Amino acid sequence: MTVRTLPVTKHHGLGNDFCVWLDLDGAGSPLTPGLARAVCDRHRGIGADGLIRATRPDGPEEAALTFDLRNADGSAAEMSGNGLRCLAQAAFDAGVIAAGQPFVVLTAAGPRGLMLRVTEAPTIVWVSVDMGVARTHGDDERCNVGHGTLTVDMGNPHLVVAGPDPATVAVGELGPSLETSVPGGQNVEFVTLGPGRDEITMRVWERGAGETLACGTGACAAAVAFHRWGRVGPRVTVHQPGGDADVELRDDGTVALSGPSQRIATCVVEVDDR
Amino acid sequence: MTVRTLPVTKHHGLGNDFCVWLDLDGAGSPLTPGLARAVCDRHRGIGADGLIRATRPDGPEEAALTFDLRNADGSAAEMSGNGLRCLAQAAFDAGVIAAGQPFVVLTAAGPRGLMLRVTEAPTIVWVSVDMGVARTHGDDERCNVGHGTLTVDMGNPHLVVAGPDPATVAVGELGPSLETSVPGGQNVEFVTLGPGRDEITMRVWERGAGETLACGTGACAAAVAFHRWGRVGPRVTVHQPGGDADVELRDDGTVALSGPSQRIATCVVEVDDR
Repeated sequence: MTVRTLPVTKHHGLGNDFCVWLDLDGAGSPLTPGLARAVCDRHRGIGADGLIRATRPDGPEEAALTFDLRNADGSAAEMSGNGLRCLAQAAFDAGVIAAGQPFVVLTAAGPRGLMLRVTEAPTIVWVSVDMGVARTHGDDERCNVGHGTLTVDMGNPHLVVAGPDPATVAVGELGPSLETSVPGGQNVEFVTLGPGRDEITMRVWERGAGETLACGTGACAAAVAFHRWGRVGPRVTVHQPGGDADVELRDDGTVALSGPSQRIATCVVEVDDR
Repeated sequence: MTVRTLPVTKHHGLGNDFCVWLDLDGAGSPLTPGLARAVCDRHRGIGADGLIRATRPDGPEEAALTFDLRNADGSAAEMSGNGLRCLAQAAFDAGVIAAGQPFVVLTAAGPRGLMLRVTEAPTIVWVSVDMGVARTHGDDERCNVGHGTLTVDMGNPHLVVAGPDPATVAVGELGPSLETSVPGGQNVEFVTLGPGRDEITMRVWERGAGETLACGTGACAAAVAFHRWGRVGPRVTVHQPGGDADVELRDDGTVALSGPSQRIATCVVEVDDR
């Protein structure tokens, strides 16, 4: 048995946790499914929802970093708002990007613009991610559990269900049936207005993952729906069980998502290379 | 918010994972419930079943180290065979103890003799732990889920439930009610004989931790019970979801547990000290 050492930092965005491997010169071996499973194993590895590998792009491109993400089960993920925020913090800590200056990360879903802001808490930064254009598909009244529903495409499909306080909603029962009510499935957000002005409160049922503590594209979809219904302005705070995120709806139709990334630990992992 | 950095190594014994904090000169602050919860949080910390703090004992004692363990929920644990093996590996890596030479660790359940052996795999050691004297409390038929039960005190309380193949047992339902069926709670082992001679197969519900992949004191308790029932000899291999451990029942009534410890990572954790 030979053992390989891998330097990673662990971070979380609203409870969604990632190990980040900054392989800036690209000298490391590829991000294989087996490597992601080994590092993300909660008992036999560090443990995380996903492993991110970042390199500097080849050639004179404007992007600061590439973003390669595998989930804990080894599957490839195109995009993750929480994952991009964690990568931004790792890159900032390593001196690769600067606070307050926009930078671009190349993801499998295309380039994404980001900006990092330092907070008062020493381990926490705040990162805005350009989430692209939201596409809505007309009011959708197929479901009668809420006061209104809207289908929103954020690169992945969402059904936003406006209704009573999500704390009172049987998300575990309604989520699965609404997830599978369209071909290919969809994410489902249970959302109510408030408690403050331009604030909404939601719980999310994620396609393939069940209820999670927070969902970046889901927060965007919910803000888009409540803005379209005229209930909030273009800057919305989204309260989720894992914490708060800010969504900005721009005039050009694009959506920016801002939220925290918290640094947990700096680690050297020993991975069996068999 | 102030942040404290804590150097830990993460190890696992049969999938039972611990962060070990070698605070050899005892200069660190105590191992509080909050610190254990923060480090052991699977999403907002490193993630582990428990956090171990070890210091050098005061005064000219023969013990090499003290052993202080808190579970992921912050509760104090008196003893853990898997935890002691993980501590032994951390101490060996730090040069505090030597391979092949017995040494003593002071636990809340009393002093424990250990010996570490280096294996061919670079990240794995094999450690024998003197688990002390097992005390049984007569056949106990309060529970009717198995073919027989026995209460065993290994420094911590165990209920061994002999029954069908543990893979077919609803551990998640039976565990909580059996755990709390005595004052102070107890660990519960669901065990069947086989598959080989002098072998038993078990799943364990640990007090304060839920179902785990393996439990050192639980493996000993199960071997003691099946030996008392005349089903196995004095050297027993215990198959658990996380892997195998060897239990030796000595003529003087003491029990020795042997099993692996694997080093996963070397980390510096940042803990909010609020």
